[in-house]
Amino acid sequence: MSEQGSTEDRLIARYFRPLANHPAALGLSDDAAALTPPAGCDLVLTTDGVIAGVHAFADDRPDMIGRKALRMNLSDLAAKGAKPLGFLMALSLPAAIDEAWLAAFAGGLGEDAERYGCPLLGGDTDHTPGPFAVSITAFGTVPQGKMVKRSTAKPGDVIAVTGTIGDSALGVLLRRDQALSRRWTLTDATSAHLKQRYLLPEPRNALAEAVLQHASAGMDISDGLAGDIAKLCRASGVAAEIDVGRVPFSNAVRAAVAADPAALETALSGGDDYELALTLAPEKFSAFRAAAGQAGVPVTEIGRVAAGQGTRFSQNGRVLTFARPAYSHF
Amino acid sequence: MSEQGSTEDRLIARYFRPLANHPAALGLSDDAAALTPPAGCDLVLTTDGVIAGVHAFADDRPDMIGRKALRMNLSDLAAKGAKPLGFLMALSLPAAIDEAWLAAFAGGLGEDAERYGCPLLGGDTDHTPGPFAVSITAFGTVPQGKMVKRSTAKPGDVIAVTGTIGDSALGVLLRRDQALSRRWTLTDATSAHLKQRYLLPEPRNALAEAVLQHASAGMDISDGLAGDIAKLCRASGVAAEIDVGRVPFSNAVRAAVAADPAALETALSGGDDYELALTLAPEKFSAFRAAAGQAGVPVTEIGRVAAGQGTRFSQNGRVLTFARPAYSHF
Repeated sequence: MSEQGSTEDRLIARYFRPLANHPAALGLSDDAAALTPPAGCDLVLTTDGVIAGVHAFADDRPDMIGRKALRMNLSDLAAKGAKPLGFLMALSLPAAIDEAWLAAFAGGLGEDAERYGCPLLGGDTDHTPGPFAVSITAFGTVPQGKMVKRSTAKPGDVIAVTGTIGDSALGVLLRRDQALSRRWTLTDATSAHLKQRYLLPEPRNALAEAVLQHASAGMDISDGLAGDIAKLCRASGVAAEIDVGRVPFSNAVRAAVAADPAALETALSGGDDYELALTLAPEKFSAFRAAAGQAGVPVTEIGRVAAGQGTRFSQNGRVLTFARPAYSHF
Repeated sequence: MSEQGSTEDRLIARYFRPLANHPAALGLSDDAAALTPPAGCDLVLTTDGVIAGVHAFADDRPDMIGRKALRMNLSDLAAKGAKPLGFLMALSLPAAIDEAWLAAFAGGLGEDAERYGCPLLGGDTDHTPGPFAVSITAFGTVPQGKMVKRSTAKPGDVIAVTGTIGDSALGVLLRRDQALSRRWTLTDATSAHLKQRYLLPEPRNALAEAVLQHASAGMDISDGLAGDIAKLCRASGVAAEIDVGRVPFSNAVRAAVAADPAALETALSGGDDYELALTLAPEKFSAFRAAAGQAGVPVTEIGRVAAGQGTRFSQNGRVLTFARPAYSHF
């Protein structure tokens, strides 16, 4: 009998074992990982993934797909105040995926695993008659009982977001229809900015420690600001008042909305931002903003938590309603 | 803005929240689960899944697909000596999946989650243009440092397997070509037995404690006995001598092999057994077999670990060679 193992074993050894530099991974040579949890910590567990044609364009560069899949999960960990520990990955590979594609995918994934301190702990690789898909389950740590939840926002809290909102939602529309660039009066640079924001999220893990210290509740914005704020409010049993005039937009989004007011709803409800939506007791906000500033991440107050239920987005005294408040896969 | 949430939220609340009865799951209402690891334990982490048309027939009953996906992971935990703790699940749903299908899937999955003490901790649900797929990441616990590995078999150890080998590999061929039933001289009952073994694995979690106490190394047999024994030997840096005459076969497999000797290679290398392959110091084997007997699981010695490398399957003094020693997805 061959002592070489199968093609599957060889691909795993060549492209994925280098990412598995945590002792728990056992060099990917076992059925399972054996993780000794850090003392005094809770594990934060999250799962998210990329299906080609759904969460990324099928012709996106494979290294970007690898990075994006990990970053979607890292963004959840950041919102929970958790420090990355590692991840497991299930790959579904169509016949059209060749070794060069897989090498590039593993290369991008591996660079981000290194950058964010989140090594590969184990995985599963299968053929599929469907599109390429990668499902990641990521693990982070927080001090016991300290995970930042959705359900703990309090009336009077400041509502804040990181970065800018809506870039990615407009970017995906631009990818589908380049003619929008002209309609939205975009330059090459602002058009490229929006597309890049969809291609590759910038998760806010540099803020995780400050989130843990200061936020009363939080989540990452993956299904659109409007819908995600509504989810956080439902989980907390509170209401929210959002001043759309304070929502931070990039120059690109500002230009698009000025030229095409319908782009505003897309920016507020389209999703794939991978920014953080946080609530903070008012007395903690300035310390949090200072910590975020040190990490180079802009933070903007966009509204307040109120007693009651319902989320109200208003602009110059006018209340906005959304046809489709959040991205839903159904 | 609607306070009802999306269709996605409604489906999750209706069908999957009832499976999430562990405090770590936070009722599936957060971005992530918050798990306090049991003191003094390592976490055993494994991931495995079902893609319709690859690991199950697309027209298999949805409750069986749900059970199978969880059981594939439970089998890995059993082989590692781990007690189930919970699981995360990523669902990829094609448009053709309706709510009745999803309800049945969740029903089967939920019954097994209850039976094996392995609650749902979190998940992710997406649409896909491809086939239905479910990827599960399961967690188990072992006392710190005690996970049963592949890499720790010792020359002189007994090699043992649970249950019977090859049923499922013949069952899947029967599902594809019912005419084989006649060629293999099967009765309705033996034919049904083989197909059932493919449809629904019986993971050996009842033995996990005994595996932990007695086994020197172990893995579950998912890619075929021949290939999986070879993997275990490579990881341990040892050789194996397997007496094919001692490999436990069901009456159905015996009948098939008697009528069609080529079925022997399929039985030994076809995969999907979800039995355990274990190595044990000879002085521990009888205690292990007694414990397995109390749990109602037959255990059979099929060979010995030897110094050196290579795995040899022999029958009546003749060495068997396999064209394709293990199932590989590539």
